[in-house]
Amino acid sequence: MRIVALSGGVGGAKLVSGLANVLPPERLTVIANTADDFDHLGLRICPDLDTVIYNLAGCQHPAQGWGHAGESFHALEQIRRLEPADSWFLLGDKDLATHLLRRKWLDAGNSLTDVTAQLARAFDLSVTLLPMCDQYVSTRMILKQPWQGQTTLAFQDYFVRYQCHPEIKDYAFSGIEHSTLSDAVNLALQTMDALVICPSNPFVSIAPILSVTGFKDAVLERQCPCIVVSPIIAGRAVKGPAAKMLHELGLRQSAVAIAEFYRDIASHFVLDSSDEDLALCIA
Amino acid sequence: MRIVALSGGVGGAKLVSGLANVLPPERLTVIANTADDFDHLGLRICPDLDTVIYNLAGCQHPAQGWGHAGESFHALEQIRRLEPADSWFLLGDKDLATHLLRRKWLDAGNSLTDVTAQLARAFDLSVTLLPMCDQYVSTRMILKQPWQGQTTLAFQDYFVRYQCHPEIKDYAFSGIEHSTLSDAVNLALQTMDALVICPSNPFVSIAPILSVTGFKDAVLERQCPCIVVSPIIAGRAVKGPAAKMLHELGLRQSAVAIAEFYRDIASHFVLDSSDEDLALCIA
Repeated sequence: MRIVALSGGVGGAKLVSGLANVLPPERLTVIANTADDFDHLGLRICPDLDTVIYNLAGCQHPAQGWGHAGESFHALEQIRRLEPADSWFLLGDKDLATHLLRRKWLDAGNSLTDVTAQLARAFDLSVTLLPMCDQYVSTRMILKQPWQGQTTLAFQDYFVRYQCHPEIKDYAFSGIEHSTLSDAVNLALQTMDALVICPSNPFVSIAPILSVTGFKDAVLERQCPCIVVSPIIAGRAVKGPAAKMLHELGLRQSAVAIAEFYRDIASHFVLDSSDEDLALCIA
Repeated sequence: MRIVALSGGVGGAKLVSGLANVLPPERLTVIANTADDFDHLGLRICPDLDTVIYNLAGCQHPAQGWGHAGESFHALEQIRRLEPADSWFLLGDKDLATHLLRRKWLDAGNSLTDVTAQLARAFDLSVTLLPMCDQYVSTRMILKQPWQGQTTLAFQDYFVRYQCHPEIKDYAFSGIEHSTLSDAVNLALQTMDALVICPSNPFVSIAPILSVTGFKDAVLERQCPCIVVSPIIAGRAVKGPAAKMLHELGLRQSAVAIAEFYRDIASHFVLDSSDEDLALCIA
């Protein structure tokens, strides 16, 4: 029984950790979103990959779900003193080690897939963790009204710098047209016995993965179940701006809208018991 | 009275700090060695520039003379856990802020001269600090006997990783043939009223500066005093491997050998009082 799980950050990482607790590690492959990756201070930051790694390694900050437990911010505090404009993204000292090693290994010509495997080994993970692709893809949020003069925002500006305040009317994955299925992702999709879509943001965490050239076709052609776990419970997101986005995109703030979003690929849909009344609307 | 001081790391930075205490800041320009700069984990590390900055800013580690006072090493400890081979160079958490900002500003297309000025401003320095040139030059130590199969070593490998243990027979400045005088260095040399050579290592701190294309000629053509402060006191180096290098290069472990080294450019030579007997040998 080989399970492939598609994951974004915190919400997805929680289910992935649960799966890792009950499955033999060679049976679980996690494919994580990398469309919110970005370059900052010369580092390549891959928030979703890192959140999955830290959660699988059990070293994640217990309350936040992302970043390290017992993290310090001495480098960041110094950046704030020297160049306040560059201190908006929360970089912990331990976390910096991940980004520095990733930078080094990427600079040496390794693919993000290989670098991620190397990081996973360094964190003693036995589960296979793959980036959705090796090409650089970046999510852009398309705004209803200009925000500080901008009509679109890079995802981390939207998510971290502006705390999801700007209203969105759409989103796009810049560079996705150059993406290809890596050999590792292709093999995982061809040999899986079940596909799990984690309770991650459908628009900015799972949609980018499904948008990698060839990914959705491989999912549609599969001969196995596809189990979607709703990231919306009682109208609220497990984590992050999914519910707010549903509203701004003109959709219902409900698990029903999630089921609708995945209608063409889902065979099973997991609802929270508090939403059991909705089961009748999802058929 | 405009003073230009040539400096390496700790020894030079101490004299530079003293000069900064007694001179109006607009009268002092420091030109620092950058031939021991190197790339590490994607960062550009400039040990001598940083040591001068931290000393001028008064935030240097009081005992070491390099690095920050009250520094922590959480990022480095994590690198040691994840990839022990990359933890040989001591990178403090606060220090990382300097390297990350330098990386960002260099990546944006700025020269090292401009980036250094930007860092100096961030540290509230009022003295002018210049790198010896904007091109990348790297000191290589040429060994008497192969060390772990290598006949030459990059400077930081020699200095930090192997703690100056390998015996050297010579040294070379790789890339120096592509170096040019920056406008700022050229202006400083053309308008100085005195040149001070700090008590830095003559071979690997001051020689690279003098080897920048056009630098030595400008010094020889000057119309002002050149005051050398001996880095050797009573046969021992103020700091670092200068005395050991003198020995391995077949020179006397004495301030006399230093005076000889600078004979063609020095007009004044400052000896420690413990070496006053040597004054007669230096004429």
